[in-house]
Amino acid sequence: MEEMDHLAHERSKAQFDVDAMKVVWAGSKHALDVSDRMARLVASDPVFRKDNRTMLGRKELFKNTLRKAAHAWKRVHELRLTEEEASMLRLFLDEPSYVDLHWGMFVPAIKGQGTDEQQKKWLPLAYKMQIIGCYAQTELGHGSNVQGLETTATFDPKTDEFIIHSPTLTSSKWWPGGLGKISTHAVVYARLITDGKDHGINGFIVQLRSLDDHSPLPGITIGDIGTKFGNGAYNTMDNGVLRFDHVRIARNQMLMRVSQVTREGKYLQSDVPRQLLYGTMVYVRQTIVSDASKALSRAVCIAVRYSAVRRQFGSQDGGPETQVIDYKTQQSRLFPLLASAYAFRFVGEWLKWLYADVTRRLQANDFSTLPEAHACTAGLKSLTTSATADGIEECRKLCGGHGYLCSSGLPELFAVYVPACTYEGDNVVLLLQVARFLMKTVSRLGSGKQPVGATAYMGRAQHLMQCKCDVRGAEDWLKPSIILEAFEARAVRLAVNCAQNISKAASPEEGFSELSADLLEAAVAHCQLIIVSKFIEKVQQDMPGPGVREQLQILCNIYALSVLHKHVGDFLVTGCITPKQASLANDQLRSLYSQIRPNAIALVDAFNYTDHYLGSVLGRYDGNVYPNLYEEAWKDPLNDSVVPDGYHEYIQPLLKQKIRVSRL
Amino acid sequence: MEEMDHLAHERSKAQFDVDAMKVVWAGSKHALDVSDRMARLVASDPVFRKDNRTMLGRKELFKNTLRKAAHAWKRVHELRLTEEEASMLRLFLDEPSYVDLHWGMFVPAIKGQGTDEQQKKWLPLAYKMQIIGCYAQTELGHGSNVQGLETTATFDPKTDEFIIHSPTLTSSKWWPGGLGKISTHAVVYARLITDGKDHGINGFIVQLRSLDDHSPLPGITIGDIGTKFGNGAYNTMDNGVLRFDHVRIARNQMLMRVSQVTREGKYLQSDVPRQLLYGTMVYVRQTIVSDASKALSRAVCIAVRYSAVRRQFGSQDGGPETQVIDYKTQQSRLFPLLASAYAFRFVGEWLKWLYADVTRRLQANDFSTLPEAHACTAGLKSLTTSATADGIEECRKLCGGHGYLCSSGLPELFAVYVPACTYEGDNVVLLLQVARFLMKTVSRLGSGKQPVGATAYMGRAQHLMQCKCDVRGAEDWLKPSIILEAFEARAVRLAVNCAQNISKAASPEEGFSELSADLLEAAVAHCQLIIVSKFIEKVQQDMPGPGVREQLQILCNIYALSVLHKHVGDFLVTGCITPKQASLANDQLRSLYSQIRPNAIALVDAFNYTDHYLGSVLGRYDGNVYPNLYEEAWKDPLNDSVVPDGYHEYIQPLLKQKIRVSRL
Repeated sequence: MEEMDHLAHERSKAQFDVDAMKVVWAGSKHALDVSDRMARLVASDPVFRKDNRTMLGRKELFKNTLRKAAHAWKRVHELRLTEEEASMLRLFLDEPSYVDLHWGMFVPAIKGQGTDEQQKKWLPLAYKMQIIGCYAQTELGHGSNVQGLETTATFDPKTDEFIIHSPTLTSSKWWPGGLGKISTHAVVYARLITDGKDHGINGFIVQLRSLDDHSPLPGITIGDIGTKFGNGAYNTMDNGVLRFDHVRIARNQMLMRVSQVTREGKYLQSDVPRQLLYGTMVYVRQTIVSDASKALSRAVCIAVRYSAVRRQFGSQDGGPETQVIDYKTQQSRLFPLLASAYAFRFVGEWLKWLYADVTRRLQANDFSTLPEAHACTAGLKSLTTSATADGIEECRKLCGGHGYLCSSGLPELFAVYVPACTYEGDNVVLLLQVARFLMKTVSRLGSGKQPVGATAYMGRAQHLMQCKCDVRGAEDWLKPSIILEAFEARAVRLAVNCAQNISKAASPEEGFSELSADLLEAAVAHCQLIIVSKFIEKVQQDMPGPGVREQLQILCNIYALSVLHKHVGDFLVTGCITPKQASLANDQLRSLYSQIRPNAIALVDAFNYTDHYLGSVLGRYDGNVYPNLYEEAWKDPLNDSVVPDGYHEYIQPLLKQKIRVSRL
Repeated sequence: MEEMDHLAHERSKAQFDVDAMKVVWAGSKHALDVSDRMARLVASDPVFRKDNRTMLGRKELFKNTLRKAAHAWKRVHELRLTEEEASMLRLFLDEPSYVDLHWGMFVPAIKGQGTDEQQKKWLPLAYKMQIIGCYAQTELGHGSNVQGLETTATFDPKTDEFIIHSPTLTSSKWWPGGLGKISTHAVVYARLITDGKDHGINGFIVQLRSLDDHSPLPGITIGDIGTKFGNGAYNTMDNGVLRFDHVRIARNQMLMRVSQVTREGKYLQSDVPRQLLYGTMVYVRQTIVSDASKALSRAVCIAVRYSAVRRQFGSQDGGPETQVIDYKTQQSRLFPLLASAYAFRFVGEWLKWLYADVTRRLQANDFSTLPEAHACTAGLKSLTTSATADGIEECRKLCGGHGYLCSSGLPELFAVYVPACTYEGDNVVLLLQVARFLMKTVSRLGSGKQPVGATAYMGRAQHLMQCKCDVRGAEDWLKPSIILEAFEARAVRLAVNCAQNISKAASPEEGFSELSADLLEAAVAHCQLIIVSKFIEKVQQDMPGPGVREQLQILCNIYALSVLHKHVGDFLVTGCITPKQASLANDQLRSLYSQIRPNAIALVDAFNYTDHYLGSVLGRYDGNVYPNLYEEAWKDPLNDSVVPDGYHEYIQPLLKQKIRVSRL
């Protein structure tokens, strides 16, 4: 195939230094270097090939994933990769597998909830993968409500053991990744019962399978829960079902950092503060926000490049047709998503800092910022994952019919991404937690205690409740202070309105429940404000490279004004802006789209994604889409033969009118 | 498994006659009877089993579809089914296949564009399926822009033949269903060229494969275009690629009803009006709207039933937890979709009448209502398919984690449905056509010519531009006249604003293109008004059965007020309602949710869907979800063996630390 860059003209139009932007996106020169090396390492290794993934049956697909995971392990050791490099390699491998749960949940659970002794015993085994672990929390009947889990762990003082048991069908462990076929061990969450008393949910290390022949241990029923959304997607993962029939484990396999059971069966709380568990949630959700920007940026990269390649309509006098990226309808859907990808990247970076800050404080026994940090990460997890799931599907639609082909990469990207809206906290449940925190903050406003962190703006509620937006011309909407105040005023007013309406109800709980749909909107407004404010802060930082800051400034304004346009009802109902100002924001937005247009391709190049990682014919770096779509088609198993299997039985008899019809 | 109706209590709460509602939903007693019989026929036939669909590889899946299609053909003849019954049977078979294109596109194309003589020759063959046809229009490089197709049909007067040719790679036919592996014939759209002159796009009947051994005829390259979104979904269909290398066909295989080429190569237009082609579009799009209500209602049925089965949180004193359908957040997402399903059903019914009306007029050479009917169906196709695609995914999310399992039926429903947003007119392109029609209507408002049909309200623009909404209390939002006027005012004002802004641009074309994002919003407002007004009309009709009208009245109000809430920015920016009135609408909406709640299960029962058609463990009629989820899991191929394939190669060596690491 010709080696030509079909997007060279687009690249030449960029008004900024793409290499400098790559560093900004990656976070640092070092991060860019590591990710670049690891991405190339994966892309160049035939074992890591993934273009055939959507054509494999479940068994073949799964086996192939095991092969990749083992090969990755081997390469990590051969090349003596650092932990940072190894985790990057796993990222670019881009295939969910038992390994994710082993490193991402099993190991951290032991680290966070195990005593020093327990860590000393289990971690070396886990680090060497002499045991493989998963995280068995959710059950068939309970996901969000962890306190409702039914599995029991009953202490038997006679033998110094716990009896792990699944008392009902709905208590079957259900969903844990890596459980179905691979894990040898699990951290199992169960109701701790001693002497007939229920002490609530605790974690236990349970061996599931023989280390000799991998068969399930006595009393353990275990399997895969079946096919999931998408062709490849999460079907590379053995999400599992697990039932216990009075399985006995030693007492010291209860994770005892936070609470203990003594030899006599006495239940004790340690003095390790329970808030530490929230710290872990902040950590996990922070990584989810960072993954959101990755997933969304991949989809946007594909859609932006293909929109520049694809031409449709608008040919005058036999000339070429118009690139679809030049249509305002395309721009008004695509560019806000491009801006969102950058916005989520930066808010994710800030969350990383927030986690570090919280950790430092926890170590100094300062729990003061934890509730706010917890609400903040919960809300941002919810908002960014929902927007990313919707955004990927929107990118797919923006690619027209060809986006429906698996070779576009977008169906897989969507199917593999959407669980992020549900796992680690259902997005609606999380927003309600944020709302609850906001209501608490509002109720304390009179008390003199100033709100902290991302809610600090609520300390200026009195001003924000009655301030008037200063916009007189479209260009006023470019001022960060004006944007910020409009978003702050909207967030405060929605929250205060909710609080006032709740206070009219028979009880606060009833009011909260009755108004919960409004509360979700208030929580969203608060989270969008955080994203906008962190983007504005980012743009104000020092940034090397010609044009880099200017482009980010435009993206920041696109993000803010497109959110404002989408939620303009909020801003108008609360009187934060006038109809005229809403219309000026819209005018400004159109002008921003024109400004970003020549830079669009370079802005997605700055993500520095390899064609392997993108996994999309439509998003190829060289833009050489059509010959490659054509070539991909022939790889489908249906094209193995010219005449399809089934023709002789089911088509030929039809054509020859030889289908036997019984007389009824 | 126990035979118990876990939803009996829910059903006993219904405040209306479910059987009467079934008739309303089906359209008539007769329609209900036919669909009920055909649904049961399909559900009881083991060949039509579909629960294994998501576990099959592409080849197996495809072969199985061929088997079902042949079996359906056989049953239709054995049981001497009427055409109405046969098409219902195909609907409940619920699996896309070459048959859809044969009956839905190939036959109608010949009927609509073939001369009497051509129809006499080809239709009997097609009716008996002695030939199988598809519809080869879109190409690799052109979908929406039909006038840009590149395939050529050049008349050769020497031999009285057309030479069909694919001059470029992008001219390859791409996407036609049934083309890849099955069709023996196609209606091929190509540029008609006679004597060096290009006469634009015409249809040609081209034989593709040998009727003896199914091999492609000389000069024809043909294959499947590869895997598409979803596990089963459209992968049961052989969407195809087709290239012609100077393939010759007889002159009389050009479809000559609208234009002819004579023996001498002269191009002639017949006196058959071209507008007839628009009539066909109205027909096809009308069926798509009706399919939208079917797809959305299936998803809603699953989500409503499961939301009544699923309990999470809210247990007091060890009692049962709260059914998730009782949470306001769930209701505010679910009930508007339930209302939309009914709304789309009724607007689809009305479109059927509209098509009949247009056809009657066309036969009497009255083309006056055609442009309006065309814009109307284009807009409703766009709006209902987009809302349905989003709605299905929302229903999936409303089912929490378990909605991600294929056994929930929702991933398949989504993946198989989403192409409706793209085929038969990309939804954005269609909305722009509506917008263009609206701009034309606005520009003629002064001329004294009254707008007709669904745009008639624009004749009252003067009033609607300045009217004030009369709502003083939440209950005022229940009055149809108030709702209607608010929607009319919003639609007119958005359209007139666009027209005014366009008039400020350098040229109307430039203005239209620059403001196209705003124009989309105006077009959506117009289409939502149509849906609301047709729902209101429906509720005003005679309706037997206690409580039926009352429930539809509530659903109608939920539809209207939830649309108003979602687009409240439009209503406020245009001054149609005040912030206070917006907040009253919201209050009313909450109260409507409480009213519909006890009827929710009965309202989805009224769809009369069999468990086979729903294809969802979560949506089972008897609500017996958990044991069936558990049982389904074990059917996955990964559970064929306890120790998975790949363990010995890729897991055991890891656990035993025997992975060979080369020294590098």
